[in-house]
Amino acid sequence: MEIITATAEIGDRIREIRAQGRTIGFVPTMGALHPGHLSLVEKARADNDIVIVSIFVNPTQFNDNGDLEHYPRTFESDRSLLEEAQTDILFFPEAGELYHDEFRFKVTESPLSEELEGAHRPGHFDGVLTVVMKLLSLIRPDRAYFGEKDWQQFLLIRDMAAAFFLETEIVPCSLVREPDGLAMSSRNAHLSVEERQRAAFFPKVLRSCDTTDKKRRVLEDAGFEVDYLEERDGRTLGAVVLGSVRLIDNVRLSETETSP
Amino acid sequence: MEIITATAEIGDRIREIRAQGRTIGFVPTMGALHPGHLSLVEKARADNDIVIVSIFVNPTQFNDNGDLEHYPRTFESDRSLLEEAQTDILFFPEAGELYHDEFRFKVTESPLSEELEGAHRPGHFDGVLTVVMKLLSLIRPDRAYFGEKDWQQFLLIRDMAAAFFLETEIVPCSLVREPDGLAMSSRNAHLSVEERQRAAFFPKVLRSCDTTDKKRRVLEDAGFEVDYLEERDGRTLGAVVLGSVRLIDNVRLSETETSP
Repeated sequence: MEIITATAEIGDRIREIRAQGRTIGFVPTMGALHPGHLSLVEKARADNDIVIVSIFVNPTQFNDNGDLEHYPRTFESDRSLLEEAQTDILFFPEAGELYHDEFRFKVTESPLSEELEGAHRPGHFDGVLTVVMKLLSLIRPDRAYFGEKDWQQFLLIRDMAAAFFLETEIVPCSLVREPDGLAMSSRNAHLSVEERQRAAFFPKVLRSCDTTDKKRRVLEDAGFEVDYLEERDGRTLGAVVLGSVRLIDNVRLSETETSP
Repeated sequence: MEIITATAEIGDRIREIRAQGRTIGFVPTMGALHPGHLSLVEKARADNDIVIVSIFVNPTQFNDNGDLEHYPRTFESDRSLLEEAQTDILFFPEAGELYHDEFRFKVTESPLSEELEGAHRPGHFDGVLTVVMKLLSLIRPDRAYFGEKDWQQFLLIRDMAAAFFLETEIVPCSLVREPDGLAMSSRNAHLSVEERQRAAFFPKVLRSCDTTDKKRRVLEDAGFEVDYLEERDGRTLGAVVLGSVRLIDNVRLSETETSP
């Protein structure tokens, strides 16, 4: 696996790969990789000649500096996981290189980016869209893979790619759950043992056949702080805070239990 | 000359041209072509295998609906001028196609886009950057040509291309003047005969050796309303209103008269 940190160097490699007529699958991540990420890499591996994974903890998508500072960073473990998964190129840029414009330019969206997650994390999606636009322009992949755990993020990136006529196909990937049902997330590492046990109650309630109002009350009674809980696009989307950790998840309405 | 109006069709043609290994020079315009535009087409013709010119009166860069409505539209004349100038493809999209996202997505910049022109035309540069990003993503030219008459626009587009790592080289082209010194502009068509005669006083004052304060007073005494007048990047940049027409211009400090 090649590790590239400079934007000029990745640009040169991309031109080489394109000139050889080989296809590129791209998986952008913030590191702290878990089986959810690896399922994206696996899909990219199956569909393309060359697999590029980026690890970049994007400062502009954190609305909370503490969250940015404490975001888990596990580079050595990430590196060996990606090597095992037959990644061709790991792109690991510095913020100064990706944001050499000193944050002057942004991609913004309205209204979807201001709803749900966006209502609770002002500026979050501007940061996501901006960094994804930079990465897609730099890497020009044939396909880019995004997890459905961040459903709203997937919708926004899919629509951005269409709005700007990008050549890249935006491929959604099913979310991956722990055996007890909790959606895999890098932030789960911050849960205490006791919180980790209680966390699985969140997807259980999302999947129940209750109304969203009822689900909200059930979660609040169980000690979760509910940021939002809403049915959209045939899914129940939710975000809760447990202790100091914010969890998001979504389940298709077709996955909802039909009997109590 | 091929005329293409559908984004899907231009996308297909671009893929064909790329597959043949031919280079693309691109000149985005809002039509109402004059020799200033044609000098860009000529430069594109000299540097590239294929020349694509777009004509699109971009609604999102007009902060004034009257200005948008009255912007000169001269398609038949534009078409024959482009044919004479050996344009290969004229891209003439409808707003509904370029903005099929219904204006949800924007490219924004701060602070330069809020200064000078931006201070007097709120939202103008968001509209320019957004449409140029769409066109550059769709057409993926090797080189795109912009007139230095819109100096601030050129700087913003050059910096946007760098910020998003676009493959396109942004090429500035000297502005073209009428025999009496007035910068060529589609909006000049709106000047009355009397205003047209007085308009040439604006670049004459810009080029004089006076201070910007003095220049402002001289222009105001001559009946111009001065939006701004500022020295930047080795240039004197200005915008004035004469009757109902807004004129912008800029001259290099090195072009300034050294004796009164």
